[in-house]
Amino acid sequence: MAGPSGKKDKAEKAGPSGKKKKEVKKETGLGLSVKKDENFGEWYSEVCKHEMIEYYDISGCYILRPWSMAIWEIMQSFFDAEIKKMKVKNCYFPLFVSPGVLEKEKDHIEGFAPEVAWVTKSGKSDLEVPIAIRPTSETVMYPYFSKWIRGHRDLPLKLNQWCNVVRWEFSNPTPFIRSREFLWQEGHTAFATKEEADEEVLQILELYRRIYEEYLAVPVVKGMKSENEKFAGGLYTTSVEAFIPNTGRGVQGATSHCLGQNFAKMFEINYENEKGETAMVWQNSWAYSTRTIGVMIMTHGDDKGLILPPKVASVQVVVIPVPYKDANTQGIFDACTATVSTLCEAGIRAEEDLRDNYSPGWKYSNWEMKGVPLRIEIGPRDLENDQVRTVRRDNGVKEDIPRGSLGKHVQELLEKIQQNMYEVAKQKREACVEEIKTWDEFIEALNKKKLILAPWCDEEEVERDVKARTKGETGAAKTLCSPFEQPELPEGTLCFASGKPAKKWTYWGRSY
Amino acid sequence: MAGPSGKKDKAEKAGPSGKKKKEVKKETGLGLSVKKDENFGEWYSEVCKHEMIEYYDISGCYILRPWSMAIWEIMQSFFDAEIKKMKVKNCYFPLFVSPGVLEKEKDHIEGFAPEVAWVTKSGKSDLEVPIAIRPTSETVMYPYFSKWIRGHRDLPLKLNQWCNVVRWEFSNPTPFIRSREFLWQEGHTAFATKEEADEEVLQILELYRRIYEEYLAVPVVKGMKSENEKFAGGLYTTSVEAFIPNTGRGVQGATSHCLGQNFAKMFEINYENEKGETAMVWQNSWAYSTRTIGVMIMTHGDDKGLILPPKVASVQVVVIPVPYKDANTQGIFDACTATVSTLCEAGIRAEEDLRDNYSPGWKYSNWEMKGVPLRIEIGPRDLENDQVRTVRRDNGVKEDIPRGSLGKHVQELLEKIQQNMYEVAKQKREACVEEIKTWDEFIEALNKKKLILAPWCDEEEVERDVKARTKGETGAAKTLCSPFEQPELPEGTLCFASGKPAKKWTYWGRSY
Repeated sequence: MAGPSGKKDKAEKAGPSGKKKKEVKKETGLGLSVKKDENFGEWYSEVCKHEMIEYYDISGCYILRPWSMAIWEIMQSFFDAEIKKMKVKNCYFPLFVSPGVLEKEKDHIEGFAPEVAWVTKSGKSDLEVPIAIRPTSETVMYPYFSKWIRGHRDLPLKLNQWCNVVRWEFSNPTPFIRSREFLWQEGHTAFATKEEADEEVLQILELYRRIYEEYLAVPVVKGMKSENEKFAGGLYTTSVEAFIPNTGRGVQGATSHCLGQNFAKMFEINYENEKGETAMVWQNSWAYSTRTIGVMIMTHGDDKGLILPPKVASVQVVVIPVPYKDANTQGIFDACTATVSTLCEAGIRAEEDLRDNYSPGWKYSNWEMKGVPLRIEIGPRDLENDQVRTVRRDNGVKEDIPRGSLGKHVQELLEKIQQNMYEVAKQKREACVEEIKTWDEFIEALNKKKLILAPWCDEEEVERDVKARTKGETGAAKTLCSPFEQPELPEGTLCFASGKPAKKWTYWGRSY
Repeated sequence: MAGPSGKKDKAEKAGPSGKKKKEVKKETGLGLSVKKDENFGEWYSEVCKHEMIEYYDISGCYILRPWSMAIWEIMQSFFDAEIKKMKVKNCYFPLFVSPGVLEKEKDHIEGFAPEVAWVTKSGKSDLEVPIAIRPTSETVMYPYFSKWIRGHRDLPLKLNQWCNVVRWEFSNPTPFIRSREFLWQEGHTAFATKEEADEEVLQILELYRRIYEEYLAVPVVKGMKSENEKFAGGLYTTSVEAFIPNTGRGVQGATSHCLGQNFAKMFEINYENEKGETAMVWQNSWAYSTRTIGVMIMTHGDDKGLILPPKVASVQVVVIPVPYKDANTQGIFDACTATVSTLCEAGIRAEEDLRDNYSPGWKYSNWEMKGVPLRIEIGPRDLENDQVRTVRRDNGVKEDIPRGSLGKHVQELLEKIQQNMYEVAKQKREACVEEIKTWDEFIEALNKKKLILAPWCDEEEVERDVKARTKGETGAAKTLCSPFEQPELPEGTLCFASGKPAKKWTYWGRSY
C-alpha cells in the first residue's frame, strides 16, 4: 500500500487528512516535513499518518490501519493470556446504557456526563427515551453483578471485555492519545474482602507496567492518583504514568481502580457470607487503551519517522536486495527470500521487499519511516562472503553477519534493540525529573518542561489552587501521581505550595 | 456463579429477565420448565438464559456471558488465523458514519436506512449534524480505499475488522439470532480482476462452512442468494444456510458478497493498471456474527439444556466426585484433581466440580444444562478398579475407562461426540428436505415445516409473488438459496410457482 501515486489528485478526495503536500512527500518517501524538536505536534501527526492512522471525516475519530492494529493485537494477546491465568473471564456487555442506570452513581456520572453521546433516533423515528453510548461500563455491568452475586461462593467475580467506548470530548483531539472513540479492555471484579481487591489492583497495575516497559519499551512510574484525579465514584486510583520530554507533559498510561463499596451500595451488590449474614462486595475496575500506542510513538519516534520496539513490531526485520549493475541479481533476490524463511523458521517476523520499482535507498527510508527495528541488506559482496548486512533502526549501527548463524544472531540483535530503546527512553525521562522544594522552583521547573517531584501536603484544596495559579493556554499543572517508591521525606519538610507539613513526594506537571 | 440464591428477591431486581419463577428453577438446577418440542421459543430463551445470555434492560440488547463469549473467542481464533494466511490484515474503522457518506450508495442505504441508529446529542448540546452508528462498514471504509489504492501494486487490498454493529430492528428480537447490537467480523477486499474477487468469495464461504460444520457441528448448505435476497448494493451474495427443524425455519448462517464495481463507482476506487490506464477495482465484503452461537444452541440443545460441541466448549470435560458414606472421600477428591491435570496435560479443557454444598445428582443436571460434552464420575468402585466412569452429553452413553489411558481415550471420545453431533443434526435436517414440483405440494410442505427444494424460474417478480401469497403471522416464505450442488433438472421442468421453464433448483421456506 506504499506504492507511488497513479493520480496524485487522489489526495484531495480523502477529506480532512488529504493535504496534498504531505501526500506527495509520503509518496516520494523523502521523509517528514518537520523535525520532532521543532514542531512536535505536527511531527506526531505526520508520523501517525504514515500507515498507523488515517484521519477520518468525523473530527476526533481515527482509523487504525493494519500497521498500528497489529501492535494492539500483540499487546492484547499478552494481556488476555495473563488475566486468564488470574481466572478473569471475558464477556461482552451492550454498547448502550439507559439514562436511569447511567445516572445512578452521582459522582461517577458527574465525571462523564458532559462527554456522553446520546442516541435519540432510529431510522426516521424518535426513540421513546434517549439512550447513552457507554463512556465506560461500571453502570452497564453492576446491575447484573447484583443479580449474579448471591452467596460467598459466587465470589470473586472477575470479568473483562475488549470493546470500544465513546467520550465526546471537545478539547483538541490527538490520534491514539485523545479520541472520541477508542478501543480498550475494561476489567470489572468483585471480592468478599478489601484485601483481595487491594491485591488485584496491584497485580493488574504490574501487568500495565509490563506492557509499557517490556513491550513498548516506555518507562513508567507506578503510583497513586490524588483525590482530585482519581476515578469518579471510586475509592482510590493507581496508575502507570509516562512522560513526554519534548512537550514536558505527563501521560496517564493506564489505571487500576479500587472502587471500594460505593458502587456496591448504589447497585445493591450484596451476598450471603459464610455466617449467613448479608455483606457487601468490594470492587475494582481497570483499563488500558489504544492510547498506549500513541505514547510509544511519542517516546521513540525520530526525524526519520517511527521506531517500533521489536516485541510489538508486526515486521521485525525487513530484507532488502541491493543489486549492482552486472552483479548476480537473481542470486541476490534468492538470498533475500532464503534469509526471510530462515528468520521466520527462527520465530522472527521478517519480510522481504523485492519491489522492482524502487531504489534500495527509497526502500531504506520508507521502512525507516515505518519504524521496522532491523534492516538486512544483501548485495553482491554479501553474496560472495556468504553474509548479510544488518542496520539497526534505533541507533543506525551496521554489522555484517555470517548467514550460517543468522537466526540466533538476529534474535540477539532484536533483544538488544528492545533493551536499548528502553534504556535510552529511561535516561531521557530521568534527565527531565526535577526535585523542588519551593513555589519559585516549581514555576521555574514547570517552564523548563520538567517532570516535577515535590513534597506535598496532599490536600485537595491545595491542588485546586495550584491548578488555578498555573492556568494558561498550555494548560494548568496538576498532580500526575504519588510514586509508590517514595524518596526519603525528612522530618519537617514543607509542602512546596501551601507551606504546610508535607505528607509525601508527588509528581507534578502538565499532562495530556 | 451457579451457586444457590442467598436471597431470591434478587431475581426481581434484574430487569426484564428477572422472572422469579424461572430464577428459582435455575437456582435449584431442576432443569427447564418447557420442552423443546412443546414451546420452542420459550425453550430457547430459557436455555440461553442459562449462563449464555443475560437479558438487558434495553430491548433487543443482550449480555454475552463468559460461557458464550468463550465460544465466540474459539471461533474467532480459528477464523482470524485462516484469513491471516490469506494475507488479510486486521484494522479498525470508527463506529460513526456521517450522513453524506452513509447515503452515497442508494440501494445500499435503502436496505439499511430504517434500522440506522442516530446520535444527535453529546452531553447537553445538540450535534451540528446527526451521526449514524455503523450497521455495516462499506460506506465507512470505501472513501479510504479510494485514497489508499492508487497503482496496481496496491492491489489486492484485504482488510478485516472484529467489531460491534447496530441495527435497530423492531421485528421481535431473539438472543444471538436477531439483536440490535451484535459482534461480528467484516472483511472488505479490493482486487484488480473479477476472477480474483470471485475466487475469494468462495474461499471465505468455505471457511464459514467449516465454522458451522467442523466447529459448531451444524450442517449448512452453500449456495447463491436470489436477486431479492442479495446484499443491498452488491453484485451477488453467497451464503451458508442452516435449518431449524423444530420451527421449520431457515437461518442465513453467514454471507460472502461480491460487490462487483458498484461501490467502486460510487466511491471512485480507481487505480492505474500495468498499461498506465485508469481502471476500477472489484470488491468483496463478507461477515459472520454471534448469530452462529444461536444456530448452534437451536440445533443441538435438548430438554436437559445446552449441548456444546467439544471443539467450541470452553469446558470439554467436567470431573465430578461421587463420594459414598464411609468410602475414602479424600482419595476420590484427589483422583478427581489428578484426572483433571492428566486431561489438561493432554490438551483437553477439563474442570473438576468439588463443591461440597451440592449433591452429585444436582451437579450432573447443572453441567448437563450447561452442555458440557463429557462428564467423568469418580466413586469408590472406580477408585478400587483404577478407572473412571464417562457419560456423554450427546447420547448419555456411559463407559468405564482405565485411568492409565485416560488422555488418549477421552480425546477419542470427544472426537466421536463432535462427529456424532454433526451426523445427528444432518440426519434431522435431511429428514426435513422435501422436493416439490407444484404450488399445492409447496403449500403442503410449507405447512409441514419442510425445507423445500423447488424448481424455479429465477424471476424476482415470482419470488415477490410467492412472498405475497404466503404472508401470514408466521411470516412469508422466500428463497433461502440456490444450492451450488444442483440436483439434475430434467429438460422441460417447470417453475412450481410461475409455470414458466425452471432455471434451477432453489431452497424455499420461512426464515429467521
